[in-house]
Amino acid sequence: DAESRELLEAWRDRVSCELDTVIDFWIRHSHDPEHGGFFSCLSRDGTVYDETKYVWMQGRQVWVYARLYRSVPRFRRPELLEAARAGGEFLLRCARPDPRVPKAAFALLRDGRAAKVQRSVFSECFCALALDELGRATGNACYERGRTAVLEHVSQDGLELPGSLGRLQNPGHAIEAGWMLLLHARARGDMAAADEAIDGFMLGPLDAGWDSPHGGLLAFHDADGLCPTQLEWAMKLWWPHAEALVALLAAFAHRRDPALLRRFEQVAEFTFQRFPDPEHGEWFGYLNRDSSLALSIKGGPFKGCFHVPRALYMCEELLNEILAGP
Amino acid sequence: DAESRELLEAWRDRVSCELDTVIDFWIRHSHDPEHGGFFSCLSRDGTVYDETKYVWMQGRQVWVYARLYRSVPRFRRPELLEAARAGGEFLLRCARPDPRVPKAAFALLRDGRAAKVQRSVFSECFCALALDELGRATGNACYERGRTAVLEHVSQDGLELPGSLGRLQNPGHAIEAGWMLLLHARARGDMAAADEAIDGFMLGPLDAGWDSPHGGLLAFHDADGLCPTQLEWAMKLWWPHAEALVALLAAFAHRRDPALLRRFEQVAEFTFQRFPDPEHGEWFGYLNRDSSLALSIKGGPFKGCFHVPRALYMCEELLNEILAGP
Repeated sequence: DAESRELLEAWRDRVSCELDTVIDFWIRHSHDPEHGGFFSCLSRDGTVYDETKYVWMQGRQVWVYARLYRSVPRFRRPELLEAARAGGEFLLRCARPDPRVPKAAFALLRDGRAAKVQRSVFSECFCALALDELGRATGNACYERGRTAVLEHVSQDGLELPGSLGRLQNPGHAIEAGWMLLLHARARGDMAAADEAIDGFMLGPLDAGWDSPHGGLLAFHDADGLCPTQLEWAMKLWWPHAEALVALLAAFAHRRDPALLRRFEQVAEFTFQRFPDPEHGEWFGYLNRDSSLALSIKGGPFKGCFHVPRALYMCEELLNEILAGP
Repeated sequence: DAESRELLEAWRDRVSCELDTVIDFWIRHSHDPEHGGFFSCLSRDGTVYDETKYVWMQGRQVWVYARLYRSVPRFRRPELLEAARAGGEFLLRCARPDPRVPKAAFALLRDGRAAKVQRSVFSECFCALALDELGRATGNACYERGRTAVLEHVSQDGLELPGSLGRLQNPGHAIEAGWMLLLHARARGDMAAADEAIDGFMLGPLDAGWDSPHGGLLAFHDADGLCPTQLEWAMKLWWPHAEALVALLAAFAHRRDPALLRRFEQVAEFTFQRFPDPEHGEWFGYLNRDSSLALSIKGGPFKGCFHVPRALYMCEELLNEILAGP
């Protein structure tokens, strides 16, 4: 109906304008012309407060730049592709402390020397995703070398853990997995899997993880309602909210149920009112349970140029898809 | 003067009564008669919410029981020594997943099988401290076997780290180190080191880490006043406050400066008003910046029967020493 259409158009414009602001923030503040690569430890105003370069963050920023360049006409700008390419070169040159071994570091010094290596496989995953997307954007397949070898390291034994860990719920991860499953299910034409993605991975965790009366998604909660042992369990983090916007629009695009659009509006209003910084751009990452500001940083070891731009980009695409539809 | 004396006597009684309550809580709720060892994941009312047995917590609880048995007449009760001995036996039987290797696990299943091994050396340290104190309490030197071998693993390169990590201040750790240095300096008769312990390690960090206007010690802060990247930086944790009580009384016992006693009173009033649970005993561990309750648990992976009873025991001893003095 006309009211829904007006609402969707208003959000499309708001989202697209926010995406411009966010990318502009990272272009202005995170690039290192001297050594290549990206700083992610940025204060509220974009000042670098720590020169460590986190491999997760390098890979994710390359992915964002390359994907926007390839997919969104207004971002098809040479400097964006150049920055993505420079980030990819920095990763190829520095991510592996020992070039003969496929293990990537977790954190690098500013000049690219290894500072910290972790046992988990996520650094390798984000490198592979970055180089894959960069290969698509540049049409240069050589960036994709080693992608399968790296991803072979992923393992899961699927065992449920006893105690607190086994009961721990992370609404943001469930909802993020939900939109990934939904896109996959739609691509395969599997309607049952699409329903499970929406009902089981989005709406269930969104209901269970929404913090009444404060509003917003809890960082963690316990399936049996016990107190989690994570000190930040009741904080409101930026990324679950960004992922929930993507999930609810993807769900509405698929099912066209007005209740899903109302849910999107609720989460989007909460998110846009609290997370974006009207003064310096980009989003705050860490709010207390009552939505007051807990950390003033714009980026750090675990917040870079990734969740916010990816979510805004996907929301823009989804809103265009919905508005172009029947 | 008489006023100070009255104040000191009132705090001595309050501290000693609180110590009884705390030890009673752990005796009632944390023992595992079936497999030996101690549960530390206890809800507010003492219910076990996770059966994992953390090696740090086992070692620390054995130390507390054995030290109280040996040093405080009213705790010279057979069941306390028996519990310490059973905890020590559990550690000797289960702490090392491979008995041929000195590496201790970080976490054990309820029955003592290894659940998680970490690279850091703290599990071994707490085992060694536990068995040393148990050997003193029982007069049985065999518990002390391997103590030096285990402690040989401790290493420090002393290099300062760049960025956020290098600027990070942890007031609780500084103050805790302060009373350890002060006791060591007094034992050696080194007055310059004693002054440095009081001024550099206690009063400096206490001033810098005290959170005006809310009161209480911050968990972390940045030496240059930047925003820390630890999500819990502004929380008020139980253990820095417990350690500050010990530190300020040790400082007053040494220097007899009334300003130190006033400082003790300020921290003690804040601490006793907020942390002890009047309903179920023991202390809450995790408060928000405004002192509201963040986590309702009484124990968990990092809170067991250690900081609170050790601090209360040491405060009681220090107050007795001060009151017995000139």
